[in-house]
Amino acid sequence: MNKLVIVGLGHVGSYVLADAVASGLYGEIALIDTADGVALGEALDQHHATALNTRVNVDVHAGDYGDCADADVIIVAAGPSIVPSEENRVPDRAELAKTNAAVIRQVMGDIAAVTLDPVVIVITNPCDTMAHIAATEFGFPLGRVFGTGTMLDSARMRRLIADRHGIDPSSVHGLMLGEHGLSAVPALSLVSVAGVPNSGLGDAFGGDPYELDELAHDVVRAAYDVFNAKGWTNAGVAQSAIVMARAVLLDERAVYPATYPLDGEYGLRDVSVSLPCVIGRGGVVRRVAPQLTDEEEALLRTSVEAVRQAMSDAGCGAKVE
Amino acid sequence: MNKLVIVGLGHVGSYVLADAVASGLYGEIALIDTADGVALGEALDQHHATALNTRVNVDVHAGDYGDCADADVIIVAAGPSIVPSEENRVPDRAELAKTNAAVIRQVMGDIAAVTLDPVVIVITNPCDTMAHIAATEFGFPLGRVFGTGTMLDSARMRRLIADRHGIDPSSVHGLMLGEHGLSAVPALSLVSVAGVPNSGLGDAFGGDPYELDELAHDVVRAAYDVFNAKGWTNAGVAQSAIVMARAVLLDERAVYPATYPLDGEYGLRDVSVSLPCVIGRGGVVRRVAPQLTDEEEALLRTSVEAVRQAMSDAGCGAKVE
Amino acid sequence: MNKLVIVGLGHVGSYVLADAVASGLYGEIALIDTADGVALGEALDQHHATALNTRVNVDVHAGDYGDCADADVIIVAAGPSIVPSEENRVPDRAELAKTNAAVIRQVMGDIAAVTLDPVVIVITNPCDTMAHIAATEFGFPLGRVFGTGTMLDSARMRRLIADRHGIDPSSVHGLMLGEHGLSAVPALSLVSVAGVPNSGLGDAFGGDPYELDELAHDVVRAAYDVFNAKGWTNAGVAQSAIVMARAVLLDERAVYPATYPLDGEYGLRDVSVSLPCVIGRGGVVRRVAPQLTDEEEALLRTSVEAVRQAMSDAGCGAKVE
Amino acid sequence: MNKLVIVGLGHVGSYVLADAVASGLYGEIALIDTADGVALGEALDQHHATALNTRVNVDVHAGDYGDCADADVIIVAAGPSIVPSEENRVPDRAELAKTNAAVIRQVMGDIAAVTLDPVVIVITNPCDTMAHIAATEFGFPLGRVFGTGTMLDSARMRRLIADRHGIDPSSVHGLMLGEHGLSAVPALSLVSVAGVPNSGLGDAFGGDPYELDELAHDVVRAAYDVFNAKGWTNAGVAQSAIVMARAVLLDERAVYPATYPLDGEYGLRDVSVSLPCVIGRGGVVRRVAPQLTDEEEALLRTSVEAVRQAMSDAGCGAKVE
Repeated sequence: MNKLVIVGLGHVGSYVLADAVASGLYGEIALIDTADGVALGEALDQHHATALNTRVNVDVHAGDYGDCADADVIIVAAGPSIVPSEENRVPDRAELAKTNAAVIRQVMGDIAAVTLDPVVIVITNPCDTMAHIAATEFGFPLGRVFGTGTMLDSARMRRLIADRHGIDPSSVHGLMLGEHGLSAVPALSLVSVAGVPNSGLGDAFGGDPYELDELAHDVVRAAYDVFNAKGWTNAGVAQSAIVMARAVLLDERAVYPATYPLDGEYGLRDVSVSLPCVIGRGGVVRRVAPQLTDEEEALLRTSVEAVRQAMSDAGCGAKVE
Repeated sequence: MNKLVIVGLGHVGSYVLADAVASGLYGEIALIDTADGVALGEALDQHHATALNTRVNVDVHAGDYGDCADADVIIVAAGPSIVPSEENRVPDRAELAKTNAAVIRQVMGDIAAVTLDPVVIVITNPCDTMAHIAATEFGFPLGRVFGTGTMLDSARMRRLIADRHGIDPSSVHGLMLGEHGLSAVPALSLVSVAGVPNSGLGDAFGGDPYELDELAHDVVRAAYDVFNAKGWTNAGVAQSAIVMARAVLLDERAVYPATYPLDGEYGLRDVSVSLPCVIGRGGVVRRVAPQLTDEEEALLRTSVEAVRQAMSDAGCGAKVE
Repeated sequence: MNKLVIVGLGHVGSYVLADAVASGLYGEIALIDTADGVALGEALDQHHATALNTRVNVDVHAGDYGDCADADVIIVAAGPSIVPSEENRVPDRAELAKTNAAVIRQVMGDIAAVTLDPVVIVITNPCDTMAHIAATEFGFPLGRVFGTGTMLDSARMRRLIADRHGIDPSSVHGLMLGEHGLSAVPALSLVSVAGVPNSGLGDAFGGDPYELDELAHDVVRAAYDVFNAKGWTNAGVAQSAIVMARAVLLDERAVYPATYPLDGEYGLRDVSVSLPCVIGRGGVVRRVAPQLTDEEEALLRTSVEAVRQAMSDAGCGAKVE
Repeated sequence: MNKLVIVGLGHVGSYVLADAVASGLYGEIALIDTADGVALGEALDQHHATALNTRVNVDVHAGDYGDCADADVIIVAAGPSIVPSEENRVPDRAELAKTNAAVIRQVMGDIAAVTLDPVVIVITNPCDTMAHIAATEFGFPLGRVFGTGTMLDSARMRRLIADRHGIDPSSVHGLMLGEHGLSAVPALSLVSVAGVPNSGLGDAFGGDPYELDELAHDVVRAAYDVFNAKGWTNAGVAQSAIVMARAVLLDERAVYPATYPLDGEYGLRDVSVSLPCVIGRGGVVRRVAPQLTDEEEALLRTSVEAVRQAMSDAGCGAKVE
């Protein structure tokens, strides 16, 4: 029946819902939120819109954890977001680690009490830490629980490169690794457009190719440009989650960056960061550790340390089950 | 090039943007907002999302009124929305008349200073009054400026009837007339499902057919259920505007309820309320006054009086130019 | 996993496939055809196209009846079509009854040997007779097997009325009943556009409203205009089947005309013709017999007799099981 | 108004039409064919289908060259296709060169007599030669006329690689260069998946990576597998053209392989073969000659010679205007 459950209907969850309805792919969408009325209000609003002839007749409704029992995919966007600080400094998603670890443990516990069968996609920040907790503490099979991770950072990277050279970002092949957030690593040596590597993009398409530092900086900047301008970011990450959910639902086996516990890649384990993953009906069905430059790999290790700190703040970090 | 301009990027405008991007129909979307950074923030967030493979490479950007010059369609969602009152009483959109009349006059004046060519779709509440001002005070050809009116109320009506009888709302034929808001009139005598009139829907599909009063009440209630639960409504009205914009862009000549100055229908003029309209490349290219029951027509006249009051509050009501 | 099986990959089946792939709704599509290589060729061609970025990664492949075991929906388009005759007279779908009855019995027998669980949608002509055989002779629960029937005739009717009055056919509410073919009955008394009945459409929208005879004639003519011009018809009926399949897959409970054994409606039974049906996960979950005019009901009875003749030709007509 | 003209409504053109209608992107589609009734029949069939609620109200109609005057894009699929030979040997598209050169010259002359403004996308085989004639002999600005070239071969290549490694072809970055046909060159050294080059795909994803010869062979084989199985190929190439047309219509600036006269790339000129192109509102707005291995470049030169032969057969090959 193509059933989706969304947990958390704030700025992000409400856009996940909007994109899920617009996709025309779901027969039922159940909403869970702790705030009185929010799940109901979002459900009703979208429910009304299903009477417009661009929409399929999806059954959108406020629900509870019992709805997880026959869900195909659960998207978790629960927990508070980063709040713009008064000093307008660049905030760190890790600050949210403690608060949201409690949120995620409650949500995942409630899901796991009902079922371990659906694929669970975690958006809640700090995403790597939250995905790690969700993936390791509740008995789900490995790969069935993962986080959107650098799926969005990668989209931003491709968009920035595309803008630099005046082309469609869908023609840019490339991705970000590591933490979703300040320390995310552009795998710049792996970028190509029609087979042309980053260094050749200027000659090929015009514009100045990005340097690694500059690109890493600009991707983070892009996030905070949105954040500072409108107070939150949601459109990009919501669509990221919906794209991943489709890969699960239709077993597309698409290769997207996603975050879940490492298992020795680059000698790393007991930590979750994003690497390229094959995403299909079972969630993450395979993961790849592409060859990086020394500089990129060093940045990845630094990024992993940042995540370990957030994980420590969140009281996790025990062995992967 | 399929260019859309959105004026006002609050709760409604941001969903109009999200739905416009999701439609895949636009090559360029320019955003205008008085709040610093909001247009930029929304543009950037959606801009990043265009790098995901479900999106076309639409050029989403913060703009200014100069962007209207080559726009195909302009959607106006500017101005503050109704705020939930402390007493939780049912608020009236007319309260907004004065404030938003000033907003609409500023926006439309700025558009008209650039061009009278694009079709302008007004969402700002109270929608009938705002559409009336926009359609009559700035020199646009009649029909080129109209409001979403009861497009959303009609969707809610079809959804409620569909829920009553356990069917898809796209199979329910029917619409609301008059004011977008408290006095909207369900044209219940015109409702049918597969040719079965409302009174026969119980026998045909199960469930109890709606009475006129009950349905009028429940549609308004539906709006305030959303409003009270989440603090605003946006998903339904945003998609309504996008559906109408598509009818313009592709010259679909679809028949939807829309609000713009009456021209003698039911003996009424110098007021804007929703009646069924043929919507195509020129905006509203024809309007229809269907045969109503006496009760429905009486309700329509009452609804028109409610709009006249809001128009008076807004300092309009002079002859249609 | 959203699995579709298509049986018969001729002019119609190949378009069903194309529309199914374009819908983005399926994770797996299996193709069955008796002609060597046709299922493989169509599968490969569409398989290659899935590498374009407008397509989801659906698994399209040549299959066999074993693929029905876990299918959600099976669409049967097997059997030869009407061949344009040398005299260019209007051919009758009933001529195909004998030949295709054998085809359908083979196909349905092979499906039923594997499973009775999927919903089966029959397109093969003469559609009413073939749907009757498929629905009654193989032990499927009532409603799970039905034919596209007058779904296409109804689309043609709405298109013709829309063209007459210069509007979007999606704004025309109305349907054809009875046989899919020469004797199909426009339920003209049930037609409305924004609540305006057929007789008022000229005043409301311009153009001359159809008379019943004229419309019945023109809908049949529309079919044969396509048929005589290109040698077959496929685009309309293929999309009809795909729309119905979506209603099943997402449990939309949409009200569409469909053909399966009558159970006393209008005093008729032991024959299959199209009446409005609620289509959801279980197939046809409810059927409606709308109030017709005497003239329309007389035409419906004549249409039923035409189907009974085809059923007799096809060696069926025993009691509904 | 998003107007498309399709010239030639055979196996390929009819699928171009079906995909154009399904895209929901066009307000008007005009069809031109020399065969009596075929354009009319295809137009009517799709016209009827627009009354189904999954379709926009596109105006599909049989037209003439006058329809080109206000077209945004013209897709040319005119001329006979390769016929499966009795010996079932692999046929060569070049055999069609003479016949179809006459067809293309007639079609392009008729278009050019009306307008040089729309972008023209040529599908007719041998595609490189036909695109060369169309691009050089009728006064169109350079880049405004191009052929689908190896857009389809590239899709097939990505699909084959994806199948080898069990992943989604949309995750495979890579393209074919040179002739659309027997001598098409897989730019295997430019292939990557998540930054992993072809040689590493086995370790990363499982399966045996393709060798260059093997891949070149299998892509051609893929075409002829479809061809021999169903008698023609159409689904892949039709969707290729529609994807390119969208890039034009929305000015996406997507990088796709396309064929039009070389201008010194790899030292080559006065011949048309596919290289990566930026496709936007103006047609091909930029072209790239990526760095190839010696082996790949040698294959490209061989491929160019094959095209020169076909061009010679077609009586063209003079200097690029």
